[in-house]
Amino acid sequence: MPTLTEIANLLDVPLADDVGSRVITGVAGLEEASTGDLSFLSSEQYLRQFATTSASAVIVHRKVKLREPAPMPTLIVDDADLAMAKVLGLFAPPVPRPAPGAHSSATIAPSTTLGSGVRIGANVFIGENCRIGNNVVLHAGVHIDDQVSIGNDSELFANVVIRQRITIGCRVTINAGSVLGTDGFGYRWDGSAHVKVPQIGTVVVEDDVEIGSCVCIDRAKFSTTRVGRGTKIDNLVQIGHNVQIGPHCIIVGQAGLAGGARLGTGVVLGGQAAVRDHITIGDAAMAAACSAIAENVPAGTIVSGIPALPHRQSLREQAALRRLPELVTQMRKLQEQVNQLLNDR
Amino acid sequence: MPTLTEIANLLDVPLADDVGSRVITGVAGLEEASTGDLSFLSSEQYLRQFATTSASAVIVHRKVKLREPAPMPTLIVDDADLAMAKVLGLFAPPVPRPAPGAHSSATIAPSTTLGSGVRIGANVFIGENCRIGNNVVLHAGVHIDDQVSIGNDSELFANVVIRQRITIGCRVTINAGSVLGTDGFGYRWDGSAHVKVPQIGTVVVEDDVEIGSCVCIDRAKFSTTRVGRGTKIDNLVQIGHNVQIGPHCIIVGQAGLAGGARLGTGVVLGGQAAVRDHITIGDAAMAAACSAIAENVPAGTIVSGIPALPHRQSLREQAALRRLPELVTQMRKLQEQVNQLLNDR
Amino acid sequence: MPTLTEIANLLDVPLADDVGSRVITGVAGLEEASTGDLSFLSSEQYLRQFATTSASAVIVHRKVKLREPAPMPTLIVDDADLAMAKVLGLFAPPVPRPAPGAHSSATIAPSTTLGSGVRIGANVFIGENCRIGNNVVLHAGVHIDDQVSIGNDSELFANVVIRQRITIGCRVTINAGSVLGTDGFGYRWDGSAHVKVPQIGTVVVEDDVEIGSCVCIDRAKFSTTRVGRGTKIDNLVQIGHNVQIGPHCIIVGQAGLAGGARLGTGVVLGGQAAVRDHITIGDAAMAAACSAIAENVPAGTIVSGIPALPHRQSLREQAALRRLPELVTQMRKLQEQVNQLLNDR
Repeated sequence: MPTLTEIANLLDVPLADDVGSRVITGVAGLEEASTGDLSFLSSEQYLRQFATTSASAVIVHRKVKLREPAPMPTLIVDDADLAMAKVLGLFAPPVPRPAPGAHSSATIAPSTTLGSGVRIGANVFIGENCRIGNNVVLHAGVHIDDQVSIGNDSELFANVVIRQRITIGCRVTINAGSVLGTDGFGYRWDGSAHVKVPQIGTVVVEDDVEIGSCVCIDRAKFSTTRVGRGTKIDNLVQIGHNVQIGPHCIIVGQAGLAGGARLGTGVVLGGQAAVRDHITIGDAAMAAACSAIAENVPAGTIVSGIPALPHRQSLREQAALRRLPELVTQMRKLQEQVNQLLNDR
Repeated sequence: MPTLTEIANLLDVPLADDVGSRVITGVAGLEEASTGDLSFLSSEQYLRQFATTSASAVIVHRKVKLREPAPMPTLIVDDADLAMAKVLGLFAPPVPRPAPGAHSSATIAPSTTLGSGVRIGANVFIGENCRIGNNVVLHAGVHIDDQVSIGNDSELFANVVIRQRITIGCRVTINAGSVLGTDGFGYRWDGSAHVKVPQIGTVVVEDDVEIGSCVCIDRAKFSTTRVGRGTKIDNLVQIGHNVQIGPHCIIVGQAGLAGGARLGTGVVLGGQAAVRDHITIGDAAMAAACSAIAENVPAGTIVSGIPALPHRQSLREQAALRRLPELVTQMRKLQEQVNQLLNDR
Repeated sequence: MPTLTEIANLLDVPLADDVGSRVITGVAGLEEASTGDLSFLSSEQYLRQFATTSASAVIVHRKVKLREPAPMPTLIVDDADLAMAKVLGLFAPPVPRPAPGAHSSATIAPSTTLGSGVRIGANVFIGENCRIGNNVVLHAGVHIDDQVSIGNDSELFANVVIRQRITIGCRVTINAGSVLGTDGFGYRWDGSAHVKVPQIGTVVVEDDVEIGSCVCIDRAKFSTTRVGRGTKIDNLVQIGHNVQIGPHCIIVGQAGLAGGARLGTGVVLGGQAAVRDHITIGDAAMAAACSAIAENVPAGTIVSGIPALPHRQSLREQAALRRLPELVTQMRKLQEQVNQLLNDR
């Protein structure tokens, strides 16, 4: 367990001399903390909890004005998020992983090649002609169909399913229960039935992508459905066939992208946001949670609402909508006044 | 199979003497029922189906006014929901469960302790240092990582994934395909990439909770994501890191709670409802289906809409919105009249 | 690999004599195509990409007006969707499937009967008294509880879970990670807790249905939850207990149907659409993406919005809403003018 001095050094901040040898045993919120814990104060909103916390030390954002001397050692930082990330890393317990090699219950086709240092858990299935990179971790129950390539240092958690002919980059994380490579949803009505349109393309997940749990990413009709490098995808997201997601996007839980949607670099989609098929969203654009994007969004724009509009316009409409019932009443009165004036002429 | 007398006794209602020995063999809707079935009539809306049903007996809510003598034995009850629940319980077939003990194909770390009466199915994986309570049922394909605790009499259906260091109470049900303990979705932009913020906390599911299928409940950044005792969660719900759900809440399918949201006791969230991060919803508050809750909701309040507003206000706005197109037209005419009046001065 | 002549014959269209022997090796979008690829041009919107593509031949919709002679052989078609479906079928690689018979790691109860030609993958679990039809394919990790019936030629992808007493028709596809037969979400408050209402019914999936990944279809309270023949369901869809879906419906990703909802024949629900419990949607009705259907929808109607309204009305309201902020301003000015007129009298 680190001492306060070690933590202050990690954060590159000063510390009173006499407290540096104290040992920190954990991290907790101000209210939950007990002796030995380090906590955080990032806003004056929590000064009351700060006054009564049992934490042994607190990281305080420089912008927070303490009304009285702190009752415990404090570490004053300029970037509370960065400090928290660094400190949490100190205390992160190791993630349990399968033992090196392949578990005896795993089923691995002989034509598949395994890199060095792989860890393959119980009941994993790997089909023919796959290439599994060095140090790849496949937790128990992972299913990988034929001709899949997984780059070095990627980790797939329990029960993930990767269908055939999919390419996954290096340092990719895919969380439990996600499914990559289901056929895209495409049918053609022939007069008596919906006939399936073959979905012969694939999915490419580039390096450093992280994918949450129960995420579905569909195979392209032809060519590829692509998730760009460094993009992070939360749980229960739906990504339709032929979607093109640029690098460094953030896609929050339960968002859905219909077939052929295109996201540029660094796009942010809020939770439950929906993107219509074949819509293009420009670089660094952001869509608020629950927005329904039915038209192209220019780069750098913030949109919100159903249908999604530029955020300021959306706010103006919402403000006006709050006044609409009174507007209806006011209109009625105004009409009466005008009628009176017209009668009086 | 029970007789009508036995069912009347169970419901504590009177029954005509001459029909009590009839045997009831099943339960069905008025339209689907055939001879031997018991059916239900809870509203006058279904009197037509009641008149022509083949059911051998019908439970009728006291409030329903029958226009003519019923063509079959009836059981008149004050609480149709309660009566239905009791009767359905009589006819509920047993749930298939793995045999007592652990299936030969299960992989269980030796450091894990199993309570008495456990049933562990095929291909179950249990990591190190777990405590599995008495009579716990783990269906085939369940995956449990290290240091998980599961209380007595809990049941996890096929392919559920529980990640490391999670605590699950007694009499908890988790349905197939759900994932508990995925890392919370937290990143920090360092100028060139989204850097993962370690998620070192855990998930606590208290006693008597029921969780649907394909539900995702994320691990806390630090401390715990908590689901309070007796809370019921439907399918495909997303629960972000550090969410605090009180006891006896009802969360309907596809709802989503962003990080740090707090629900009091007995909160009801309708289907597809969304709760913004760090929002607090007070005891016994209710949110309609599809509402998007972006501000705190006081206890006992009903909200609806996107963004969610007090339900009456939401209804008023919706009513006004229905009149808005005509309001635009009316406004144009009114302006013309006023212009005329101004000209005429 | 087919020649251009073979493709022209398949599509029943003419082709210049001198190019028919060229071999086509794949299908790609205009921008991604390289030599040997066949591509598509279905709209003048893509004429720029058409001019610079490396594709060796292009299928062109008859409605597209080419401004100059095409730089490569073209196949002019009347129905681009049909042509694409036919051509994609030519190039569709085979889907990897388990070997005929049952994998040695599968657990199959002896009371279950397997049809001829079945393919049962690694770690599949099948309970007691199931009937698995001829040529059924169960990919690795599929879980089937007791008394399930699966018709001939159906295919269940990895990790699908089918709970007890469910009936699945012939030629049904269920994609990875979906769960059928979870108990419907029904509770009764007894004054101190939510008491589970037994869900004793079942699920019937008729012939030729296709179900995406991570779809949840709940067991009926009593009688059946039904998915009609030929209906296609996309990923992450929630279908509550006792829902009745007619034949040939299309239900797009992340849509949700609450308990007892009824869809007629050929209904289309867009992505993330929500249907309230016990709502009826008539034949051939369509609901736009993200619509929230809270009232019955007559046959043949198109609805959109939250709450869903007839689409034209919805569009009119949205258009008026776009003008609402200016209406508020205009109203204020108009009131001032009227006040002036009233003062001037």
